[in-house]
Amino acid sequence: MLRLVSDRAKRLLFSSSSSVLTITSTSARMRFFSSSSTDKTTITSPVTVETINPKIVKCEYAVRGEIVTHAQRLQQELQEKPGSLPFDEILYCNIGNPQSLGQQPITFFREVLSLLNHPPLLDGSETHALFSSDSVERAFNILEMIPGRATGAYSHSQGIKGLRDDIASGIAARDGFSANAEDIFLTDGASPGVHMMMQLLIRSENDGILCPIPQYPLYSASITLHGGTLVPYYLDEATGWGLEISEVKKQLDDARSKGITVRALVVINPGNPTGQVLAEDNQKEIVEFCIKEGLVLLADEVYQENIYVDNKKFNSFKKISRSMGYGDEDISLVSFQSVSKGYHGECGRRGGYMEVTGFSPAVREQIYKVASVNLCSNIPGQILASLVMNPPKVGDESYESYSAQKDGILSSLARRAKSLEDAFNSLESVTCNKTEGAMYLFPRLHLPEKAISAARAVKTAPDAFYARRLLDATGIVVVPGSGFGQVPGTWHIRCTILPQEDKIPGIITRLKAFHERFMAEYRD
Amino acid sequence: MLRLVSDRAKRLLFSSSSSVLTITSTSARMRFFSSSSTDKTTITSPVTVETINPKIVKCEYAVRGEIVTHAQRLQQELQEKPGSLPFDEILYCNIGNPQSLGQQPITFFREVLSLLNHPPLLDGSETHALFSSDSVERAFNILEMIPGRATGAYSHSQGIKGLRDDIASGIAARDGFSANAEDIFLTDGASPGVHMMMQLLIRSENDGILCPIPQYPLYSASITLHGGTLVPYYLDEATGWGLEISEVKKQLDDARSKGITVRALVVINPGNPTGQVLAEDNQKEIVEFCIKEGLVLLADEVYQENIYVDNKKFNSFKKISRSMGYGDEDISLVSFQSVSKGYHGECGRRGGYMEVTGFSPAVREQIYKVASVNLCSNIPGQILASLVMNPPKVGDESYESYSAQKDGILSSLARRAKSLEDAFNSLESVTCNKTEGAMYLFPRLHLPEKAISAARAVKTAPDAFYARRLLDATGIVVVPGSGFGQVPGTWHIRCTILPQEDKIPGIITRLKAFHERFMAEYRD
Repeated sequence: MLRLVSDRAKRLLFSSSSSVLTITSTSARMRFFSSSSTDKTTITSPVTVETINPKIVKCEYAVRGEIVTHAQRLQQELQEKPGSLPFDEILYCNIGNPQSLGQQPITFFREVLSLLNHPPLLDGSETHALFSSDSVERAFNILEMIPGRATGAYSHSQGIKGLRDDIASGIAARDGFSANAEDIFLTDGASPGVHMMMQLLIRSENDGILCPIPQYPLYSASITLHGGTLVPYYLDEATGWGLEISEVKKQLDDARSKGITVRALVVINPGNPTGQVLAEDNQKEIVEFCIKEGLVLLADEVYQENIYVDNKKFNSFKKISRSMGYGDEDISLVSFQSVSKGYHGECGRRGGYMEVTGFSPAVREQIYKVASVNLCSNIPGQILASLVMNPPKVGDESYESYSAQKDGILSSLARRAKSLEDAFNSLESVTCNKTEGAMYLFPRLHLPEKAISAARAVKTAPDAFYARRLLDATGIVVVPGSGFGQVPGTWHIRCTILPQEDKIPGIITRLKAFHERFMAEYRD
Repeated sequence: MLRLVSDRAKRLLFSSSSSVLTITSTSARMRFFSSSSTDKTTITSPVTVETINPKIVKCEYAVRGEIVTHAQRLQQELQEKPGSLPFDEILYCNIGNPQSLGQQPITFFREVLSLLNHPPLLDGSETHALFSSDSVERAFNILEMIPGRATGAYSHSQGIKGLRDDIASGIAARDGFSANAEDIFLTDGASPGVHMMMQLLIRSENDGILCPIPQYPLYSASITLHGGTLVPYYLDEATGWGLEISEVKKQLDDARSKGITVRALVVINPGNPTGQVLAEDNQKEIVEFCIKEGLVLLADEVYQENIYVDNKKFNSFKKISRSMGYGDEDISLVSFQSVSKGYHGECGRRGGYMEVTGFSPAVREQIYKVASVNLCSNIPGQILASLVMNPPKVGDESYESYSAQKDGILSSLARRAKSLEDAFNSLESVTCNKTEGAMYLFPRLHLPEKAISAARAVKTAPDAFYARRLLDATGIVVVPGSGFGQVPGTWHIRCTILPQEDKIPGIITRLKAFHERFMAEYRD
């Protein structure tokens, strides 16, 4: 069960819960009208919402919540009756899913995957006309890493050893500090790694996990599902979503005073949904804090390639801690990485890894055991994770095209971030911090009282009310800030920077027109 | 925490736990010798085995347990010092991982996956020289199902709708009863589906799940991880691992008398590790029983293609219940399917689905929410699941080769099962039931008292002792029966039928020679 430590947070953090996901109240063995059976029937099931695991009922995941369900309905309406709505397409800005909005995959990565899905291609004389020479070479090398060249077999539960070696080399090259294949656990995207660590650390609701607010709701959902307590620390919007150690310390002490054993600190860098990139000094403070307070540092570093400003760069927490002289013996640190983000955006491939350092062999053995219950992560995702951490190098045939594709995507994302940021800031009563990294804007809506009352009247959080009105008027799907948590009494939306660049001007025009009408209707 | 209801079971079901996974005892913030850091250091971590989630410590998964770790050590020894052991290769008969032992993938499936990993291939003039025409056509059709043709995007949380339609058609064709795409949840292999249902049904250790004993340890592990109680029912070895409703009823009543709310019945058909195929009448009894007792029926049907005897055929529980006139309104039924098994054996692809029928819309909404927290299963795995349920048809260019590959694999598996069964039955004091289906033999070892005492003397379960001796002498890796559960006082091993056919005679020779020496040493 999710317990929020701060009463202030408790009151409003997830105040829109009833709007995010509507739970039909039912009584035991009641008869239902089934929407799922082909012929409509009534259901008598021994299982009802009242008798399932209450942690599941409590869990929320706004990124795919009610607003998205509504968008899907509208999309169907558009297909069935074109011209029936005030827009002709739905623009999904709710989720970091680049390829769904037209971003193209990196050719080299896909060539290697294609070859390894059907290794007989490597022997075909026509193959060289269809694939680059370095993708063929890479596929051969990877095939040699796989026992029996069996790309269809379960691998070692941590993933194929040779791929983990490549990833460790990539980490070492990135950080300038050594990395070890034995520390890498390949996972189906970053999410299963997060779940695994929450499952490991949480024993009961008396165990707490410090999470930033706003946060990516995987964290709140996972803590809820595993029965722990989310201990919120607030990022400071006024300083560009700054992470103040004094705030973290205050919340930690508050939690401890309530009997909570705080086990870990989650840091998302670059920030989701907030888009800030942590400064090196700030990261050092965080490392010191975790060591001093005996906290595991859970570092969500899935946006490490997504940096859009010149004055910031990504530093992994492993690099920071090693540069401070701290080793495996000093800090328990888990870094999460994914193939879904970066310039590649291969969300559907479900590849990723966690680098687990600073745990005893006995605890690592337990992590290995949990990984082994699920046998292994998917092999194409494992391969892709190794490619992302070990892309083409200068001199490789694919290097030029790879590099052009990567730079094209990242520079376009930077331009889109800036255009949308400027657009939000041009709106009446809206302020928006810079997207330094990641894939999101998190503008604050200073909503008029009249709008807040109108939202309350329909039992909806004001930001959810705004998001719904925006969707109905423009087809643009954003997620209400209440799905991520926010300082009580403030209202935000999360909007991705992912629509293709040629669509951005149209989005801005629609957004501005909507906002003007909204303000005209509700201005106090 | 896993509680076993039957005291008899409690005593011995997992009696070899200490041998399956050795847990290093540690005290809080003790210093450890780390095997993971590149330079050996001592670890001070806020996390110890005593302070992690005790459900994880309790959980066991013998299929990748101590015996496999030992085998990996021996394999390394062989590589480093060839000729140093009495055998020259390790034969992994511990896990249903066909391609790791040389089984080749189905060409058509891999062609489609290869094309969809790199769709520009579909436009290449050389492509037709490398791929069959129906794989190109199928890849085109699947591409059209995917919004924006984006094979790298997250899909709908249940999986791509068009693929679910294909799977539903495949189920309908198999069963002769309609199936609905809305009921299909695509998953990364079958395991995440099982976890999802356990998470849904288990609220506390007072919730019980009826599981066959012997069982596939995913079930015991998942029940333990989710904090429930495994309620064992014993399969009857004397009748070919028969499932007697009277035994299930007895265990159900026993559990209820102890205050356990029994929520579901797990049936594995064809059986793992036991290899039996349920008769239709027996399945009807099970359906009636679940309806009468208000139990969800969790049907593990991942071996549905693996039937090796003429007098048995696979019937899904959905088909059985529908043929009895029971619909969605009468029985809550979940069927698990996987791309890892069958004739295709694509374990590393982590594809699968669960078909969820007979739950209220409100409960299904909760299942959908949990699925959405992890976004979606991997797209290549989703595609493969659709191919498995909708393979080439008569008249398609690939049909002949597909059909020859499939029949070749299945008939060879049947021959291997029979050869190994005969071999086990020829051993002194060993009896082995027929492998009617699935991928395993589960012979019973009637061990001499002297062997049992020798095992006890080294604090090992007698079957684990035998398995270890077998491995050390022959390189053959099998899993002790204690990892699956067995009637107390009986001892078994699970051995897959998966080594390639030309290796079977050698395996049998080594097995017989070992067993004779073992019996000569320990015969009473």
